[in-house]
Amino acid sequence: MFGSSPAGPGEFELIDQYFRQSGVTGAESEQGRILLGIGDDCAVVEVAAGRQLLMSIDTLVEGTHFLAGTEPDVLGWRSLAVNISDLAAMGADPWCFTLALTLPRTDPLWLQEFAGGLFRLATRFGMHLIGGDTTRGPLSLTLQVQGTVTGAPLTRSGAKPGDLVLVSGTLGDAAAALRFLDLPREAYSSSQQFLRRRYEYPEPRVAIGQKLRGLATAAIDVSDGLLADLGHICQRSGVGAWIDPARLPLSRAIQAELPPDDALHCALEGGDDYELCFTLPPDKLRHVQSWLEERLVTVVGEITPEPGLWLRDEAGQLQATSGRGYRHFE
Amino acid sequence: MFGSSPAGPGEFELIDQYFRQSGVTGAESEQGRILLGIGDDCAVVEVAAGRQLLMSIDTLVEGTHFLAGTEPDVLGWRSLAVNISDLAAMGADPWCFTLALTLPRTDPLWLQEFAGGLFRLATRFGMHLIGGDTTRGPLSLTLQVQGTVTGAPLTRSGAKPGDLVLVSGTLGDAAAALRFLDLPREAYSSSQQFLRRRYEYPEPRVAIGQKLRGLATAAIDVSDGLLADLGHICQRSGVGAWIDPARLPLSRAIQAELPPDDALHCALEGGDDYELCFTLPPDKLRHVQSWLEERLVTVVGEITPEPGLWLRDEAGQLQATSGRGYRHFE
Repeated sequence: MFGSSPAGPGEFELIDQYFRQSGVTGAESEQGRILLGIGDDCAVVEVAAGRQLLMSIDTLVEGTHFLAGTEPDVLGWRSLAVNISDLAAMGADPWCFTLALTLPRTDPLWLQEFAGGLFRLATRFGMHLIGGDTTRGPLSLTLQVQGTVTGAPLTRSGAKPGDLVLVSGTLGDAAAALRFLDLPREAYSSSQQFLRRRYEYPEPRVAIGQKLRGLATAAIDVSDGLLADLGHICQRSGVGAWIDPARLPLSRAIQAELPPDDALHCALEGGDDYELCFTLPPDKLRHVQSWLEERLVTVVGEITPEPGLWLRDEAGQLQATSGRGYRHFE
Repeated sequence: MFGSSPAGPGEFELIDQYFRQSGVTGAESEQGRILLGIGDDCAVVEVAAGRQLLMSIDTLVEGTHFLAGTEPDVLGWRSLAVNISDLAAMGADPWCFTLALTLPRTDPLWLQEFAGGLFRLATRFGMHLIGGDTTRGPLSLTLQVQGTVTGAPLTRSGAKPGDLVLVSGTLGDAAAALRFLDLPREAYSSSQQFLRRRYEYPEPRVAIGQKLRGLATAAIDVSDGLLADLGHICQRSGVGAWIDPARLPLSRAIQAELPPDDALHCALEGGDDYELCFTLPPDKLRHVQSWLEERLVTVVGEITPEPGLWLRDEAGQLQATSGRGYRHFE
C-alpha cells in the first residue's frame, strides 16, 4: 500500500507523507476497529458484530470527469464526495477509504492541496484513509469507500406503484455550472459562484440517507441525472415513474442564470448533483414533514405499475421520455 | 456500481454483461456472506464472526505497468494476481473484489478476453466480483481485493535479528522476460516462453501465505524486487538483513537466457515476480522442511540487528547495498 508501484526513486515516500493521518491504526468506533492502516500489504479492519459492510469504488479521470487544470483541492474533495454519496444512497455510515492515485508527475504543492480537500471532507465524516497505491500515468483518481449499516441498507430495488418520488436539495446546479466553467472566476456573478461551488464541492447526503433507512422503499444518488438515476430505480424495482417538471426543486441561482427551459433540462438530465432520489409510500410522508417544510426534500413524482418514465404536465397529461441521462463532457 | 460514469449511451450495460458472474449475491462461505453484488450503489457483505477483513488496492496503467497492445487476457489475470498477492503476503484467504476499469474505447473482443483472464484466476480462488465502475479514459485497471483471516495476519513488522530470510519460488524471471518482450513470440526459445509466462501470469502464493500464519515473523510479496521489498520488512521491523547471492533461487530458464551477473541482478532488483519473502526463526525451519526439499522455498539470508541491507559473499564478507529496487519501465 502506497508502495507497490513507486513513481520514481524515493518518490513514493514523499507522496506517502501527504496521506498519513495520525491515529488510524487502532481507531475504534461503533462501526468496528481499524487494526492496520497504511504501511503493509493490506489494510486490516474488524467490522463490529451485527454490522454489514458496504463498499463502493469510483474513478475520476482528467478530461472525462474534470478538466485539466482543475484545482487539486476540488479534486480531493470531489473524488471522496462522489464515493461517500454512494454510501449515503444506501443509508450507510461512512467509515474508511482507500485511494489509488495515478499522477503524471510529482508536484508537492498539488499533493498538499489535493490532500487538503480530501481530508477536509474525510474529517467531517470521521473517515480514515487506510491504504492506497500511487502510480505514474495520466491523472486519475480511484477511491473505494467502506461504510456500515445495522439492519437492511437502502437499495434501488424496492419501489412500489403508488410510492411518491422525492429528491433532496436542488437539481441541475452542477450541470448549470458547466456552462461557464471556462469563464474567469473574477467575472462570476454570485449565482455563478454558488453553482460552481455546487459542482466542485458536492455535499453527500449522509444524514438524509441514514434517516431514510426503514422508511424509503428505494434510493439512489443523482450522479447521472434525475431521469437516468430514477430509471435505475425503476429498472431494478420493475416499475415505472412519472415526474412533474413544475415541482422540480430549482435553486435561485439556476433560475437567475438560465432560461426556464434550460434550467429544467439541467434538473432532469444534468448529473453530478449528488442529491438523493428516493421513493416513499404516501403514508410515510409525515416522517419527513420537517424536511418538506424546510424544502430539504421535495415530492416530484410517483411510481407507476407500468415500466417507463414520463413527464406529467399540470393537466395530468403524460409524455414519455428517454431517461438517458447526462454524458460526461459530451 | 458499473454505472456511475457511463462511457457512452447504452455502453455501460454492454460492458456490464462481461462482468456478471452468476450466484454472487447470496454467496456464502466460511468468510461471510455477499448480500448484494453488482447493480446497486454499493456492494454489501457480511464478514463472518471472528474474521478480520483485509483490503488492498492496486492500479495497472498502460505505458507504466504494461506495454500498449498487451493481450487483454494477460491484463485480466495480472491485474487480479498482483492484488491477490498482497492478500497472500498477509496470509489471508481471498474473498471478493471490485474493479474500476478505465477504457479509451469499447471493444467487445477486448472486454471478453479481459474478463476471461480475470475470471479464470478469480474462479481458482473462489473470488466474486462484487462491484465496479467503468470510465472513459487512458487504459488503466484498478482493483481492490478483500480477504479475511482468523487470528493475526502476517505483517511486515515482526522480523527479529537472527531470523532467517526465505523466498518462495524463483526470482528474477519476470524482470528477465522484459528483455525480450518486443521479440516476436514465434522466435521465442522455450526458456523465453517460460519467463514470459512468469511475467504475464504470476501465481499469487496464497497457500504458502496461509501456512505461514503463526509461523513467519514477517512477510511481503516481491513486487518491487527482493532488495526493495526486504528493505520494507527491515524498515517496518527496525532491523537489517544480509542476503547471500549464491543462494538465490534461479530458474533454469533465467540461467539459460542470461549471463550469471544479469540473472543475479534480475533476482535482486527485478520486480513483478510476486513470490513471497518472509522471515522465520531458525527453530521454525523444520515446519517448512518439505517445502525446502521441493525447493518451493529457499533460505537466502538472515536478519541483523543493525539497520541496512548487505550482500554476503562466500567468505562471509558483507557489502552494503542500496535496496532501491526495480522501477517500472525505466
